[in-house]
Amino acid sequence: MDQPSRAQLPWFIALSQVIGLSVVVITGVWMGHYRGGFAWDGSSLEFNVHPLCMVIGIVFLYGDAIMVFRIFQNESKAAVKILHGIIQLIGLIATIIGLVAVFEFHMEQKNPDMYSLHSWCGLITVILFGLQWLMGLVFFLFPGASNWLRAKYKPLHVFFGLTLFLLAIATALLGITEKLLFSISDGYSKQVPEGILANVLGLLLVGFGLTVGYVVTRSEWKRPPNPEDEPLSMHFKTLTECDSPDSQQ
Amino acid sequence: MDQPSRAQLPWFIALSQVIGLSVVVITGVWMGHYRGGFAWDGSSLEFNVHPLCMVIGIVFLYGDAIMVFRIFQNESKAAVKILHGIIQLIGLIATIIGLVAVFEFHMEQKNPDMYSLHSWCGLITVILFGLQWLMGLVFFLFPGASNWLRAKYKPLHVFFGLTLFLLAIATALLGITEKLLFSISDGYSKQVPEGILANVLGLLLVGFGLTVGYVVTRSEWKRPPNPEDEPLSMHFKTLTECDSPDSQQ
Repeated sequence: MDQPSRAQLPWFIALSQVIGLSVVVITGVWMGHYRGGFAWDGSSLEFNVHPLCMVIGIVFLYGDAIMVFRIFQNESKAAVKILHGIIQLIGLIATIIGLVAVFEFHMEQKNPDMYSLHSWCGLITVILFGLQWLMGLVFFLFPGASNWLRAKYKPLHVFFGLTLFLLAIATALLGITEKLLFSISDGYSKQVPEGILANVLGLLLVGFGLTVGYVVTRSEWKRPPNPEDEPLSMHFKTLTECDSPDSQQ
Repeated sequence: MDQPSRAQLPWFIALSQVIGLSVVVITGVWMGHYRGGFAWDGSSLEFNVHPLCMVIGIVFLYGDAIMVFRIFQNESKAAVKILHGIIQLIGLIATIIGLVAVFEFHMEQKNPDMYSLHSWCGLITVILFGLQWLMGLVFFLFPGASNWLRAKYKPLHVFFGLTLFLLAIATALLGITEKLLFSISDGYSKQVPEGILANVLGLLLVGFGLTVGYVVTRSEWKRPPNPEDEPLSMHFKTLTECDSPDSQQ
């Protein structure tokens, strides 16, 4: 990696974190201040858990999980892969809590489920996110898959991983639009502060997708292939047998 | 390009065209059959021109324009670049007609403008689409830009080109959600056919983005660099001086 290009990377990562944390905070302020706060009682306060868990799990943590390979360029790739899988697992758990919140709210309020484009896109994204995580575990951690199969699967894992991240963001934008039209329909067209705040949240979500997408696709920032880039199962073995994986390289 | 991989490319391009044309037809059916058809009279029939022009211009033609470099692998790159610019220009004109339709409709009906997330994302996307087209013209067609500058700008043109395409699709999904909640709010939750059709349209839009995104980013399908990959201005000169650009190669 040439030096001027490498010097820019931390700035883009810092920018992504500022935008990503703003997304989480603004979602919290929107639900906490304008929509009455949070609870787990089947009321609209339980619904409020849904957007917050989704932006934490399937947007912020997901984005950070796919950036770890750029953030930790000098650490053992095996360790970075395990970190990637752990962050995605935490994100998946937050996502499932967010889903339970909205389904429980609908059940308690006797609201119909799964009719909107937001719900269709969202359920597809979450199911594929779970499958993608399992496929990653099977292909890259368990020793059964051959190196040939791993090499074949890797570009698909990368492509679908980024695609699902972008689909999660698009679904969040749909959720913002639905929530505003349900909750403040008249005020929205009069540009009340809640509507402006939620629109700004939408733009920040787009900005987070753009920044993370740029960091993970810019070719000069890709981790150069090196001998440590072996099947994770080998490193996993190394990690459990030795004090430090680096001593093997 | 290895043969098995190359053999798959036409199938993916065909799939993208089937999905892309379905998007245009279903938008036409939605607006034509369920929303009363098309007119240019300031009524809701003028609004109906908006979704149709947008999916033709900034989704279908835009997607095809970014795929031309994969579709025409053996043709002169100069000719393919000119085709790319022309398709994008036609798409941009369709997009502007679609924008005029919705602004005229709002003006006639005294509806407020530019308060929704759809409108914010849409206006940003269209302005950046116009700028991206102009930048492409200046950098790749006019002889003023140096080769160094062109090489520096190209990855940005590619990244922002794909980003704007995906943002256009996300904006279309927001438009679908808005239109359904405004026009059939109660029926939507009861899963009336119009709502199902529009949701299917949304999924097809996602499918179009996915297919085009896969075609243009799969590394084995990239056009290999070769001597004809020179500044377009040189080829433009060649095209105007000779019968066939291929005779120069």
